Amino acid sequence: MKKKRHKTTHEENLDRLSRLEGQIRGVRRMVEEGAYCIDIITQIQAVRSALGAVGLRILHKHMDHCVADALRSRSAKEAEVKIRELMDVLKRQSS
Amino acid sequence: MKKKRHKTTHEENLDRLSRLEGQIRGVRRMVEEGAYCIDIITQIQAVRSALGAVGLRILHKHMDHCVADALRSRSAKEAEVKIRELMDVLKRQSS
Amino acid sequence: MKKKRHKTTHEENLDRLSRLEGQIRGVRRMVEEGAYCIDIITQIQAVRSALGAVGLRILHKHMDHCVADALRSRSAKEAEVKIRELMDVLKRQSS
Amino acid sequence: MKKKRHKTTHEENLDRLSRLEGQIRGVRRMVEEGAYCIDIITQIQAVRSALGAVGLRILHKHMDHCVADALRSRSAKEAEVKIRELMDVLKRQSS
Repeated sequence: MKKKRHKTTHEENLDRLSRLEGQIRGVRRMVEEGAYCIDIITQIQAVRSALGAVGLRILHKHMDHCVADALRSRSAKEAEVKIRELMDVLKRQSS
Repeated sequence: MKKKRHKTTHEENLDRLSRLEGQIRGVRRMVEEGAYCIDIITQIQAVRSALGAVGLRILHKHMDHCVADALRSRSAKEAEVKIRELMDVLKRQSS
Repeated sequence: MKKKRHKTTHEENLDRLSRLEGQIRGVRRMVEEGAYCIDIITQIQAVRSALGAVGLRILHKHMDHCVADALRSRSAKEAEVKIRELMDVLKRQSS
Repeated sequence: MKKKRHKTTHEENLDRLSRLEGQIRGVRRMVEEGAYCIDIITQIQAVRSALGAVGLRILHKHMDHCVADALRSRSAKEAEVKIRELMDVLKRQSS
């Protein structure tokens, strides 16, 4: 029996993005076919929420790598640049 | 000279959704090619924000129609159902 | 035996806002006393979320009244103004 | 002439939180006095947005300290705990 190969975060993100592409296509079809507005909006909210989840996963991976790099390099200057980048992302998120 | 035809909200929404589909494909390509995480996240935020804008346009159209219908039918019961639907959408949005 | 008086939405909102005032005071005390940043942020998120819930309750009441008025007056013009106001609120919310 | 003392982030946050307490009191007064719903909601949105800004400032300070500590201690284990805490905050934020 073949064991199911463990998916990396990278592959999982690609799968999720493919699925999201299909979901947007689905939303377009709903608009084309004159689906009920509230149903379209509900579907749009689901896509946005799934996109946000992919974003958070990428952010998590990014922070893991950043901190690993910072620990290796011990460069306070580089760490500061990374924090500023991160804060810019978070400001846009919550504005 | 041919005058550019005025686009309806409906057509504009379809165009925007097609573009968003392409943008998600772009995000996937960024992930595949190992683009910088912060750039990927920034792009994801742009897509989410554009999706939110399409959602608001559809919501606006929906409210225009609902109110027109309510004014025509003068049915308080029907209006109540519509308001409850709308509040459910808004609760999900802000939670 | 005295029956507990049923609270109106109005009174409940006032109670919630008094409580939120106290919670903000609590956040300030946490900052003063040098509480752990993550705990302060978690508390701030709770206050924001509770504030959002009060906002939604007021919005719900507003829509009930608006629609009732629209049904009474049958004024499409007035309804349009109300919808525009509402959309401005929702745009700020989701931006 | 006395020079205005430079305010620390800590003092500024306390000032902002005091002001926010006053603003919530203002919202309560608006509700008491039967102000127009849309005006109340607009004011609530302003308070939420200002609260979010205080949260981001505290988060920024927190990250500066965390990274400084991580650089000092070079403890990958400790860094991991901090990242998990941070991700929990961000997940709640964007959910």
